[in-house]
Amino acid sequence: MTIRAAVAGASGYAGGELLRLLVGHPEVEIGALTAGGNAGTLLGDHHPNLQPLADRVLTETTADELRGHDVVFLALPHGHSAAIAAELGEAVVIDCGADHRLNDPTDWARWYGGEHPGTWPYGIPELPGGRERLSSAMRIAVPGCFPTVSSLALVPALGAGLVEPDAVVVAVTGTSGAGRSLKPHLLSAEVMGSASAYGVGGAHRHTPELVQNLSAAAGAPVKVSFTPVLAPMPRGILATCSAPLRDGVDEAALRAVYAQAYADESFVRMLPEGQWPQTSATLGANTVHLQLAVDADAARLVVIGAEDNLTKGTAGGAVQCMNLATGLPEATGLPTAGVAP
Amino acid sequence: MTIRAAVAGASGYAGGELLRLLVGHPEVEIGALTAGGNAGTLLGDHHPNLQPLADRVLTETTADELRGHDVVFLALPHGHSAAIAAELGEAVVIDCGADHRLNDPTDWARWYGGEHPGTWPYGIPELPGGRERLSSAMRIAVPGCFPTVSSLALVPALGAGLVEPDAVVVAVTGTSGAGRSLKPHLLSAEVMGSASAYGVGGAHRHTPELVQNLSAAAGAPVKVSFTPVLAPMPRGILATCSAPLRDGVDEAALRAVYAQAYADESFVRMLPEGQWPQTSATLGANTVHLQLAVDADAARLVVIGAEDNLTKGTAGGAVQCMNLATGLPEATGLPTAGVAP
Amino acid sequence: MTIRAAVAGASGYAGGELLRLLVGHPEVEIGALTAGGNAGTLLGDHHPNLQPLADRVLTETTADELRGHDVVFLALPHGHSAAIAAELGEAVVIDCGADHRLNDPTDWARWYGGEHPGTWPYGIPELPGGRERLSSAMRIAVPGCFPTVSSLALVPALGAGLVEPDAVVVAVTGTSGAGRSLKPHLLSAEVMGSASAYGVGGAHRHTPELVQNLSAAAGAPVKVSFTPVLAPMPRGILATCSAPLRDGVDEAALRAVYAQAYADESFVRMLPEGQWPQTSATLGANTVHLQLAVDADAARLVVIGAEDNLTKGTAGGAVQCMNLATGLPEATGLPTAGVAP
Amino acid sequence: MTIRAAVAGASGYAGGELLRLLVGHPEVEIGALTAGGNAGTLLGDHHPNLQPLADRVLTETTADELRGHDVVFLALPHGHSAAIAAELGEAVVIDCGADHRLNDPTDWARWYGGEHPGTWPYGIPELPGGRERLSSAMRIAVPGCFPTVSSLALVPALGAGLVEPDAVVVAVTGTSGAGRSLKPHLLSAEVMGSASAYGVGGAHRHTPELVQNLSAAAGAPVKVSFTPVLAPMPRGILATCSAPLRDGVDEAALRAVYAQAYADESFVRMLPEGQWPQTSATLGANTVHLQLAVDADAARLVVIGAEDNLTKGTAGGAVQCMNLATGLPEATGLPTAGVAP
Repeated sequence: MTIRAAVAGASGYAGGELLRLLVGHPEVEIGALTAGGNAGTLLGDHHPNLQPLADRVLTETTADELRGHDVVFLALPHGHSAAIAAELGEAVVIDCGADHRLNDPTDWARWYGGEHPGTWPYGIPELPGGRERLSSAMRIAVPGCFPTVSSLALVPALGAGLVEPDAVVVAVTGTSGAGRSLKPHLLSAEVMGSASAYGVGGAHRHTPELVQNLSAAAGAPVKVSFTPVLAPMPRGILATCSAPLRDGVDEAALRAVYAQAYADESFVRMLPEGQWPQTSATLGANTVHLQLAVDADAARLVVIGAEDNLTKGTAGGAVQCMNLATGLPEATGLPTAGVAP
Repeated sequence: MTIRAAVAGASGYAGGELLRLLVGHPEVEIGALTAGGNAGTLLGDHHPNLQPLADRVLTETTADELRGHDVVFLALPHGHSAAIAAELGEAVVIDCGADHRLNDPTDWARWYGGEHPGTWPYGIPELPGGRERLSSAMRIAVPGCFPTVSSLALVPALGAGLVEPDAVVVAVTGTSGAGRSLKPHLLSAEVMGSASAYGVGGAHRHTPELVQNLSAAAGAPVKVSFTPVLAPMPRGILATCSAPLRDGVDEAALRAVYAQAYADESFVRMLPEGQWPQTSATLGANTVHLQLAVDADAARLVVIGAEDNLTKGTAGGAVQCMNLATGLPEATGLPTAGVAP
Repeated sequence: MTIRAAVAGASGYAGGELLRLLVGHPEVEIGALTAGGNAGTLLGDHHPNLQPLADRVLTETTADELRGHDVVFLALPHGHSAAIAAELGEAVVIDCGADHRLNDPTDWARWYGGEHPGTWPYGIPELPGGRERLSSAMRIAVPGCFPTVSSLALVPALGAGLVEPDAVVVAVTGTSGAGRSLKPHLLSAEVMGSASAYGVGGAHRHTPELVQNLSAAAGAPVKVSFTPVLAPMPRGILATCSAPLRDGVDEAALRAVYAQAYADESFVRMLPEGQWPQTSATLGANTVHLQLAVDADAARLVVIGAEDNLTKGTAGGAVQCMNLATGLPEATGLPTAGVAP
Repeated sequence: MTIRAAVAGASGYAGGELLRLLVGHPEVEIGALTAGGNAGTLLGDHHPNLQPLADRVLTETTADELRGHDVVFLALPHGHSAAIAAELGEAVVIDCGADHRLNDPTDWARWYGGEHPGTWPYGIPELPGGRERLSSAMRIAVPGCFPTVSSLALVPALGAGLVEPDAVVVAVTGTSGAGRSLKPHLLSAEVMGSASAYGVGGAHRHTPELVQNLSAAAGAPVKVSFTPVLAPMPRGILATCSAPLRDGVDEAALRAVYAQAYADESFVRMLPEGQWPQTSATLGANTVHLQLAVDADAARLVVIGAEDNLTKGTAGGAVQCMNLATGLPEATGLPTAGVAP
């Protein structure tokens, strides 16, 4: 079986990571590569790491260019994918942007403004009901990088009612998560040797998505205080996630729940006790590493999760969804060994 | 007025930073420089940045070597300072280690083991009552790097009763905080490009110190969930500190309290609204930068604090205490402009 | 065809990278994993990135453990491979160490001391005669990381007689090249934000290997001034290689020679004119990227080469040699797309 | 004595470093701070590290704003300083840009284009004749960051005729040297974990300045092959400088010449034998650290030099020149202890 796949937004970081994975995918043939302002240039000008595709010319992102593929990945600024997808009826369309993640039009209006582009099946297979939603789906909303790791870190405890619905997530991230945008605070001289927070106080757009996931698991509204912190590394998210323990909950109960939740997962790994996640161990791999601790004095569960924001957090998650949607074994073409040190 | 100062533990990172500051201090003459295993070597072998002192020979850390100075800084492994200080009766002794920070012998026994070496005046002048404790003190316990910035970030809100006594602190730190210890996880190839948590679940020894500071401010026991995160940078701490808002508290009330708390401080700066702390702005400076946000959805106050763990977090704080103890203007010889970018 | 492969020295960086590649190699089954001091521990303790093998126990590095495999990779300190290889008669033995790279026992005595362990076929297939030496070889000496990229950068010009036999190579390297050794200058706090040279003046042990390669190409002794520079990155080598132009040589002649030399190579890529190599583009890939310039004022050819020191510079090169020695297509299982940004 | 100093181009990296040093200078009062596009904004918006000046408003860069100061520092894009200086007759004008460094109008035309703005006294006091040129000078051309360290590394050997006039310089640099320019290759995600060369083949504009300095020392034209390499660090230059040894020259002769050349210098330090320069040891300090080796096999002298490109390489060198020009002790207000680790 050969899947013909197109990538819209190929010159950005998400597009580049999609192509790195698709080049190594045994069942994929890479079709159109499109871009906005970079149309007409070579892929190798933007991604010198992608030598096998370096001479491919980027074409304009239009429905005409993207039509005729089995799968179309969209890595576009928000607000653009609904219109294009409407013209790609037959294809599996996998949106790496934010447009179709939120269920509630009110949330959309508040966080993004304008009319809600609609909700698509949400692309975390490892969440309850995830695989059912995604198998044979024709439209898929790839989750945000922060919600992926943070949801996988907290959903088991919330789902089992072991913690209060009041979470605090502080997630350290590499700077590729901000995309290839020319902003002074992303200049290397400003970033290297420095850590800084942004979107503090719930201002980051991944907040409502995380609230949505955690509330679904808890079966009730969950309060979430989310703070992203920019750290001097190109990739990687380390999320420190905590919530108050319910009375009588001990570490053994929590470990049992997490062990069961991820026992059969290829890409989510509870590390052995005593080993703590580090982002480098997930670099370039489609994996999330987790570990937990119970803080008896503070009466909180603390779960640490690590992922590569561009791989499991974006492009790897997207390819995993493609595999599910097209009937391939879910793990096809997806590395589980990270590039370290 | 010339103060003769000795530094014990001069070959480590804290010792080196003390000397960098003392070299530039207009009222200090540098006396004995001592070490443990490195006795007999040149200071320049360990700190090539300290060219003005590069040819100074390190002598053995003994009371004999340290006696006869006006001020003695101790940057030793824990458990060593009490015995030495007992033989330095006349001198101002400033301990950069943990030995004399905790009030409660039970805490000491739990976190460090063995008999409590006693409590000394605690070296954060900007906390309530701080300057009174430190002026003319003969023995001073320099605080831990994490408690310094985290306490300054949360004490005003707790002191004014604006938040619940239930704090969550996630603090990203550069790796110099771990000292010059030859451990695999501190090797550059493992650290660069990676973030990782450690001491999760309240296991870090700075936890009881932070609980002590926050509880003193709140006038009641404060629960503290503290997680340190190692980031790929040599210096700097960025602490994300949050606590549940009490009913009816709004941002204006909080801003007023913080503005008043630090209005007259040279080294603690509430940044203008909209500007968020970044550790590079404090590099090599004796400063803490703060900013706050109210998250109405999560009903939490979030305060971000930045400092250089070796400067305000250790050696700069120690020199500030020296100034107070010896009657010098508090800011003498202490830089407030960081080295950035 | 399934190749059973063992790795000796599996807990180090070279061993880890070998396993990352072998895990993804379609024709390899991973057999014994051995170590020295780390025998008895789990692979996952040392390489948390290698989750698919995390539960494998490291056994002692002995000939008994390694016997019975089709291929044995040795990633051992120098001086150990000859004795072990002598007991592995039937297997293809691929030595990632230095023991069998040098032709001249006098060189060995000068640079390493003691008796020369003998010379094995040298593992850069892309050098003149390389493939002939390596096809069906039973013993292979994997080259040093610096000589790999530097030789590929200079051999075409020297081989065609376009430059004088008097080369200057300054090669910036990430710190994984130094291995997992607990030395103060490799601590992250010392490395991050800093560059430093070492082995200056021809003192680095890769110098005679580079002289050997370049002299073979030139057909005459080549003088080589080699300086390695440690930079704050985990992986990657960027080599700046130059030599005086012979009279009448112009850029067109040079470009023609390089284009021809590497036209059919999968892993060595002359970048398009105007594009300069960057190490991140080769991260985790078995590739060398090259670009050249003619400096008419200084009358020199300058060639820049980039590689990942652990992949093409060590483990990837070793797997490429394994493919050749076992009759597999040379590129089997070897990524050519780097992990960037 | 109080010097009133203005800084034009205060929002850039060179301007920020000038202000960091001037804030700590005991004889300077800071006057006008001007900018181009950033006029009207607060200094703290651009340099959050400069808290003592954070509330100062940037005004437009015009002669009117800058007139009336004792010293005016210009940190402007090239081509702008001559016109402004012409209106500042009475002031000492210190140009951190390139406009007045080159002696030869032909060089200017070739490297920058357009008419030569004229030559001013060249700001490296440690070069032969440097102090004579700079004492009481009213116009000063601050050297480029690469020529500063590279000239100090090679001039003694060339001046004493111990090496051939044929130098190779490969200089690793932090990214602040490129200024605060919003270019994709300076984005942190591209820079971190990567090294890359640029301006290869003599294309960098610091080449003719370096040729000029070295030729002046040698008393004859010197060929210079110069390659800058971008490394993932915010600041710092490590220059590897080499040249062929003249017959009969040995290491002792070279060490004697370098020892004598810098014996009385405050800011240039030959490290003890066996200690190699590292850029972090010069971070934020006005120093150059040097070490040399003789490579007998390659018949070359190799000199390694380290500096902070923004301090000794730009702003510190500028303040040192100001001290000389205004009759202050040359070392006033200039740190010699770097911020490390």
